[in-house]
Amino acid sequence: MDFWFSQLETEDVKTSIRVNKQLYSAQSEYQRIDVFETKELGKMIVLDGEIIFSDADEFIYNEMIVHVPMAVHPNVKNVLIIGGGDGGVARVLTEYPEIEHIDVVEQDEMFLEISKQFFPETAKGFDDERVTVSHMDGLRFLRRCTDKYDLIINDTTDPFGYAEGLFTREFYGSCYRALKEDGIMVYQHGSPFYDEDEEAFRAMHRKAYKSFPINRVYQAHIPTCPSGYWMFGFASKKYHPLKDLNAKRWKARDIKTWYYTTNLHKGAFMLPKYVEDLLVEEEKAAKKEV
Amino acid sequence: MDFWFSQLETEDVKTSIRVNKQLYSAQSEYQRIDVFETKELGKMIVLDGEIIFSDADEFIYNEMIVHVPMAVHPNVKNVLIIGGGDGGVARVLTEYPEIEHIDVVEQDEMFLEISKQFFPETAKGFDDERVTVSHMDGLRFLRRCTDKYDLIINDTTDPFGYAEGLFTREFYGSCYRALKEDGIMVYQHGSPFYDEDEEAFRAMHRKAYKSFPINRVYQAHIPTCPSGYWMFGFASKKYHPLKDLNAKRWKARDIKTWYYTTNLHKGAFMLPKYVEDLLVEEEKAAKKEV
Repeated sequence: MDFWFSQLETEDVKTSIRVNKQLYSAQSEYQRIDVFETKELGKMIVLDGEIIFSDADEFIYNEMIVHVPMAVHPNVKNVLIIGGGDGGVARVLTEYPEIEHIDVVEQDEMFLEISKQFFPETAKGFDDERVTVSHMDGLRFLRRCTDKYDLIINDTTDPFGYAEGLFTREFYGSCYRALKEDGIMVYQHGSPFYDEDEEAFRAMHRKAYKSFPINRVYQAHIPTCPSGYWMFGFASKKYHPLKDLNAKRWKARDIKTWYYTTNLHKGAFMLPKYVEDLLVEEEKAAKKEV
Repeated sequence: MDFWFSQLETEDVKTSIRVNKQLYSAQSEYQRIDVFETKELGKMIVLDGEIIFSDADEFIYNEMIVHVPMAVHPNVKNVLIIGGGDGGVARVLTEYPEIEHIDVVEQDEMFLEISKQFFPETAKGFDDERVTVSHMDGLRFLRRCTDKYDLIINDTTDPFGYAEGLFTREFYGSCYRALKEDGIMVYQHGSPFYDEDEEAFRAMHRKAYKSFPINRVYQAHIPTCPSGYWMFGFASKKYHPLKDLNAKRWKARDIKTWYYTTNLHKGAFMLPKYVEDLLVEEEKAAKKEV
């Protein structure tokens, strides 16, 4: 059967994955949720038409959003994940014994339930007794937090639709307040390649740059993301993502990975010229606005 | 009008680009050649159904295959490009005044003529008086060369079809012989992500590893390549791609780039764990075979 799911990367570019079977489809209070079984990428979950992850490449995103800050911050005890309803980020965090508590604030309870049902290997992060899940708006949750977390990971989807409030300047300010004095915030930063993504990419950096003293962007190759090229933001009160990387300490933990190494960690911050130029332009614009 | 060109990345994954107009289509002696005008990526050239480059991302491939060896080798005078019928690699090389001669060996004369007609900005590399074009088989050309080139760039398409001879062990051996005692060979190394590309990726590294004392693989994010993730091979008789990188010398040349920086150069060799593992496995296998 000739049966394809297509993700529109822009109005004029799409990636299509051949589907064996649609395993699930529902409309939650917040979004349409689909699960597909595919030959090339295994099972795949799609929110409002965007691939969130597939069995074949989820390891890249989850490793890069967790291990990078964990190899820098020397003493993470308390973590907040905003979004993260699939459990993948929590699962990687639970590999660190020093972490005492992980709050997951996922607004869409149905997304979490579907993840548990179809992706038990990813969602098993929720089984760890250190993990507490709340179903509420991330920004509302944040507003009541002060000086509480060592690490905040913003694992929400694109800065459009219901998660839009999680990409405002207030959001970055609230994260800053919720972090301890040496806290780190990591967030997905979108893709800089296509013109229609570039504006969101720029705006995100400008807001983070105004809110945190240390701001760096890092990259990964994620095949199911638009253009295959995905960025993360690293915003920090004290630790620098390269100067404070402690490779020896991280390696001593002996965590199994498929994408991350402490060497790749350094390379992930070495960006193409066109991306560096975008970031510098936004930093200059932000300085003028202040 | 709903008019799309699709590139099959595997049998079960494809990338589609919306087309304004098909500008050209012909069958040469070697391959089918199509030129499309697209909204998102500008003009795009396709050989046997595979995107070779688009206006929007050709800079990434051409900069990465040229500047990486040129920032390492201290004294490049004589260069051989195998393939390179679009002129993009030659164009970037002509920005180096110290280069005295560039041989382009492109078997398919029609590909070169079409590139000149539709991509004059890319093909203008051919206008430089240091460039000589031959239309013959790259391996036949190589067999008569000994101790001649400082740099060989293998810019041919995939290791299938008529260019297959350019990916054999004999090919790497012939390149070794054609290079001077401190020569470097750079070649496109395919994409390691999808299962069906992985075998070609492995085989290529095994052959190069047996032929050259120094072998490293480096990466770039090229949106129109399969999975958006493309690799290059760096095989060398003397110079190491990182230890012999001379960033100061390269920067002093003041060459304008959009992708390459000497910092990115270093990061390009810092590979994901799954790619490192593939390379190490092939190196172990190659050692056993010797």
